[in-house]
Amino acid sequence: MVKFVLDPRLEADCIRLGELELSLVLLMNNSLVPWFILVPKVEENEICLLTAEQQNTLYKEINILSEFVCDSFETDKLNIGTIGNIVNQLHVHVVGRRKDDYCWPGVVWGEKEKRPYSASEIENIRILASSIMANGKK
Amino acid sequence: MVKFVLDPRLEADCIRLGELELSLVLLMNNSLVPWFILVPKVEENEICLLTAEQQNTLYKEINILSEFVCDSFETDKLNIGTIGNIVNQLHVHVVGRRKDDYCWPGVVWGEKEKRPYSASEIENIRILASSIMANGKK
Repeated sequence: MVKFVLDPRLEADCIRLGELELSLVLLMNNSLVPWFILVPKVEENEICLLTAEQQNTLYKEINILSEFVCDSFETDKLNIGTIGNIVNQLHVHVVGRRKDDYCWPGVVWGEKEKRPYSASEIENIRILASSIMANGKK
Repeated sequence: MVKFVLDPRLEADCIRLGELELSLVLLMNNSLVPWFILVPKVEENEICLLTAEQQNTLYKEINILSEFVCDSFETDKLNIGTIGNIVNQLHVHVVGRRKDDYCWPGVVWGEKEKRPYSASEIENIRILASSIMANGKK
């Protein structure tokens, strides 16, 4: 198996928070919305190309991240998507949306506006997210 | 259990193709891309609020539809998303994208441009899709 390397674009745009069983957990460096990304450590670029076991694990991880976003941030709706038109490496967005956020009711994908996190904001999210990393390792 | 009623906006924008075990299968009436929508017949509006069994069935149905789109249309990438910022009823988009389609590499959500299908185009897709409806009923 080839060593897994995170796509450089994701590496540049996001902060690594940790790992679950199958996926890296990233935070998009845009504090305008709580925007997380799962990157399963696989070579395939579509969910339907994963094995049943990988899919089950990925879907479990989407649930973990979904519940984390709903519990940790004020959200009216989750936006979950796997797109990959620009970054081909399989990745799943889990975004908490609010009816008064910067681009509601539009989608965040393709929106140019962003506001990078401060170091202390990142640290706070890292602490919050540490609980799911532990769960994910169970 | 309350009788399931399809959201009027989805009813207006889409063509009903059939049903799988849990979900209605809709075709977005925009022939610029092969754009299908699963609407699970549930009251919850987030995937993580479904029972484990409902989630498993929905994910199976996303796979069925994903493979159908890849097998039946020329596609370079699948875009799969559950958004619901405008239509609150839970629904999952499965869109086949091509590098030369009308809004690549942007997402289709929020794009205003569309071209409705002709009756014969709809009939052709209905025939193609009938195979997965049969599978879904197994």
